[in-house]
This record gives sequence, structure tokens and C-alpha cells, in this order.
Amino acid sequence: MNRRLAITPGEPAGIGPDITIKIAQNACNYQRIAIADPNLLTARAEQLKLPLKLIPIDYQAPPQGCRAGELFLEAIKLKTPCTPGKLDKTNAAYVINTLERAVERAQQHQIQALITGPVQKSIIIDSGIAFSGHTEFLAEKTQTPMVVMMLATQATSPALRVALATTHLPLAKVSEAITKERLRSVLRILNNDLKNHFGIKQPKILVCGLNPHAGEGGHLGLEEITTISPVINELKAEMQLDGPLPADTAFTAKYLQNADAILAMYHDQGLPVLKSHSFGEAVNITLGLPFIRTSVDHGTALDLAGTGLADSKSLACALDYADHLTRQSA
Amino acid sequence: MNRRLAITPGEPAGIGPDITIKIAQNACNYQRIAIADPNLLTARAEQLKLPLKLIPIDYQAPPQGCRAGELFLEAIKLKTPCTPGKLDKTNAAYVINTLERAVERAQQHQIQALITGPVQKSIIIDSGIAFSGHTEFLAEKTQTPMVVMMLATQATSPALRVALATTHLPLAKVSEAITKERLRSVLRILNNDLKNHFGIKQPKILVCGLNPHAGEGGHLGLEEITTISPVINELKAEMQLDGPLPADTAFTAKYLQNADAILAMYHDQGLPVLKSHSFGEAVNITLGLPFIRTSVDHGTALDLAGTGLADSKSLACALDYADHLTRQSA
Repeated sequence: MNRRLAITPGEPAGIGPDITIKIAQNACNYQRIAIADPNLLTARAEQLKLPLKLIPIDYQAPPQGCRAGELFLEAIKLKTPCTPGKLDKTNAAYVINTLERAVERAQQHQIQALITGPVQKSIIIDSGIAFSGHTEFLAEKTQTPMVVMMLATQATSPALRVALATTHLPLAKVSEAITKERLRSVLRILNNDLKNHFGIKQPKILVCGLNPHAGEGGHLGLEEITTISPVINELKAEMQLDGPLPADTAFTAKYLQNADAILAMYHDQGLPVLKSHSFGEAVNITLGLPFIRTSVDHGTALDLAGTGLADSKSLACALDYADHLTRQSA
Repeated sequence: MNRRLAITPGEPAGIGPDITIKIAQNACNYQRIAIADPNLLTARAEQLKLPLKLIPIDYQAPPQGCRAGELFLEAIKLKTPCTPGKLDKTNAAYVINTLERAVERAQQHQIQALITGPVQKSIIIDSGIAFSGHTEFLAEKTQTPMVVMMLATQATSPALRVALATTHLPLAKVSEAITKERLRSVLRILNNDLKNHFGIKQPKILVCGLNPHAGEGGHLGLEEITTISPVINELKAEMQLDGPLPADTAFTAKYLQNADAILAMYHDQGLPVLKSHSFGEAVNITLGLPFIRTSVDHGTALDLAGTGLADSKSLACALDYADHLTRQSA
């Protein structure tokens, strides 16, 4: 398998290095690369009493799998040695550098997927770097005009995939953000990525309404009539769409059986259902980027760094999902 | 067991009579009463080729269980004979009369619970009767200032109960409807009814935030800070509350294990999760009324009336749940 998957462990004082070392304890049939400081990883592995063999990555050589305990390394140096749990502004640039390097490698097709560990947004901002989040950073660096957040889980049968038309907005701002332009762009990105990265030839997408009962014919809100239905009707020539459906109908077995993905209009319409079914195995996938990117769904958990108590399940799921997608990708 | 449970089958031209006859095919250990037109039920039973023995109810006699095929009857006459599937304005008053009679019986403690079948709101309104829904009607007739909608399912373990702070509102109107007064009233009704009807001595209630991530400390909306948290803090002296929690956290196993009910702020924050887990066995319960009321969660399905194809599962669940609650009630 000639695939390379890169991990950016994120904030060095958090659990990112810990969980990267933990998942490296398993063998894998793709080339698993950490873009990180080698001394940080070695010191953390010693703290965790886990074996770790770092192998400098050579992108000229053919990709190779990893044995248990092995991790290929693309070295980026920390500015200041790191103490687990202690944030240090002087290392904020390091976190950004690992992400920039990952984007370069992806753009040169040297890696096929990026899996991001948790960053501490506040310390990056405090250091004077404008940073509103991984997703926005990656979109900007790749000149991607719009990305779509999707959460997926393989804990259900069939696998559940929920994309969001809007993400981190106050609820009172959601209605005005649901525009025809946004819905068109989101649906095209979703449809394209389901084809190109998920290997689904003719994706079937269910679109939720915005209002309860999908507006009940206009009695409970008009956005379905003015915005959502017109876009669905317009795009039916390009892709397979059904909706707008009441959200409390869309997520029932009868509908899920025939859906490759559900487009929820906002965060709490879609994610509570997904997370209630995923048993902590939800993976966050960014659609629309020129490469595959998955992410852990937790924070830096500074208090657990270096203790051995950090749970690596979310990173393992993000890596597995990226592995799965790189095998499906067009 | 000295309990009487009354069913109002609702719209006579819909599937309400059909599903009432279907569930009457099973024996039960409470007195099962239909408040309906006897000729309607007899004719529909003949169409469905199902046995039906109607027994006039005598509230002076001790309550008794029902054998298979038996249904006690409180007779209310139709104005016009009914053809399945054909709405008739002249029968709208009949539907209202069955509900009024049910309220009278409940207020006289002659029945312990009311289970309502589906009504056709539009035909009642067309007939000139002001009617905005079962729940509002029952609240008005019993001078109940506020009721709370709760959906519950026993398909999950533990049983999932989701109450709503707002119900059938356009999404754009939800934020302004979340007031301290409303939250206080809703939480008090929820807590009281969990104690009095569900037999839970010290109910534990999880309260969702309004915004994604419960507002993330004010970054994603302020209602948690201005409204929800203050009410929770204020009422903690009266009841066991936790929150405001992000909705995509509240519905995960870790939190559900220790919750008797979840209060969602709006319809599509709570019901998609519940219905995704309930496999069509969700029951709608009205809290705050002076009696127990459960309801089917579907409409009149006029095209199925008289065909034998109507699914009685929802009514069976509503009846089972009412039975369960009357056994728990204080």
C-alpha cells in the first residue's frame, strides 16, 4: 500500500504527543508519519514508559508500513523544551509550523491524508498569531473558499455521516446564515467528496429542514419554501437529493438505510444524534480541502499530558477513518 | 387493578377507530374504554374483519380488565354516518365532544389516563371551531396555565425521556422564547410530574444549552449566561439539575445513565435523537395536566382508514405508557 498518513500532534504541552505515541504501539500497513519535535516525542514516550522508534521520513523512498512502536518522523523543532501541562507562548509558532509543513506535503502529494491532534487556540492567539481554528487555517493555506464539516461514525450500521450547513454559530444567527448560495456550495462539496473520497458513485443525500416538521407547509417557518426546497429542486439535475425532511424523521432507520449522508442545517440538529450513536468514536472530517483531513474530537486535556491516562481512541478512529478514505479515494 | 384508561380515537374518517379496534384484540388488566360512536366502531370492525365486543361502561361498578376483543364504551354519537377516508365538517363537533367528555371523566377521577388518537385539525377549524391542537385544548379545558411536551421511549436502556422548553416554533423564534419565566415553569412541571407520575423520588434532570457547545463561555451565544445558568442555579435548591450541557454531550451514554430526563431547549435539539433510538415507539406525554395524557405520534392517515393497513404500534405504545404511568402515579 503506497500511502502516507501524517499526524500533527498539536499542542506540545497537551495530550497530543501522548496519544500519538499510544497509537504508534500498533503496526499498520501505511506509512505513519508524525510532524513534530523528535525530542518531545522521545521524552514523552519515556514518561509513558512506551517504546518508540522514530525513523526519519524519506519521501523519495517508496512508502512502507510500520511495525509496532514505529513512527516515521518529519522533524520540526520546538522553540522551548516542553513541560507536559504547561502552556508556553514561545511554542505557539511550532504548532503552526507543523500544520504549514503538513499542508506543503499534502499539496506536493507526499502525504495522502492529514490527521490533526488538539491545539490550544487561546495560547496561539495570545502569542500574537491570528488563528481561529484548524479548519479555517487549512482552508486559507490551500485557498479553499469553503469547507464543510462532517462527522461520521462506523459504530452504527449503516455508517452514519452527518454534514453541517452551518457550524459554530449562535442559534439565533442560524436562520440568516442559511442562504441559497451556502446550501448550493455545501451540497456540491458534500456530493463531490462522497464520490471522490468515499468511493460512492452516486451519493444519496438527505437534506433536513431548518424548522420543526420541516416548516409544516409554512406554518412553522418559511425557510424551507423560500430557500431549501428551491435549492434542492435546482440541484436535483446534478445529484441525488431528498428533502427537506423533518429532522426527527430523517434520522430514523427507514431513511438512514437509503442515505449516504445527511445534511443537517445546524450543529445541534445533527450532532447530538450522531454522538448519541457513536460511543465516542465520532470522527470529524473536513470536506472540500484538496486532501483528506480528519481530526480528533477532543481538546488538549492539559492535566492528563504525560500521565499515561489520555485516551487515544479518538485519534485511533481519526487515523482509521483517514486510512479507510485514502483507500477509497479517486 | 382498579384503573380505567380512556381512548379518544379522534377523527372518525381517519385510522383512529381502526387502531383502537386493533389494540382491543389484546387482553389487558385495566379497564379499556373508548369514548366514541358505537356504530362507527362496529362498522369499522366489520370492515377490518376483527371481532369487537362493546360493553357500556358503568363508572359505579368496580373497574375490570378486558378480554381479547373487548372494549368498554362511553357513547358519543356522530352527527353524520362516517365513510372511512372522507372528512365531514358536520362531524367536527363530535371529535370535540369526545375530548370534552374525557376531560370531565378525568376531572371526576373516573378515568386515570387519557390516550388520544389523531385528529384532523384543519376540518375542525373549517367547521368554525377554534382549535389549535389537542394539547392546547386540554390545557384550556382544565385551566392549566402551562403544559410541557415530553417524548419518551422504552426502546432504550435506560429509558430515554426528553422534555422540550419550546415546541412548535420557527427556529428563528426560539431564542426569544427562552425566558427565565418559561424555564422556571417548565422545570417545575417536569420535576413535579417525574415525581408524581413516574414514581421518581428525586428526579435528576439534565438541561441542554441553547447554542452549540452550550455557548462555549459566551463565544457562541449568550443565552446560557444570561438566562439558562441563572435559572438552573436558582432552582438547584428545589430540584436536582445539571447543565447547561452541550446537546451533543448530554445525549451520550455517560450522561444518560444518570439522568431521569433531559430538557432540550427546542424541538430539533431533542427529538431527532429520541426518534432515532425509539424505532417508532416514541410516546408523546403531556406534563402539567391534572391527569395523565399520552398520545400517538402520527396523523389521521385518511387513505389507510378501513383498509386494515394502519399500524397500531404507536397507539399500543401510548396505551402501554399510560398504563405504566398510572401504576406509578402518586
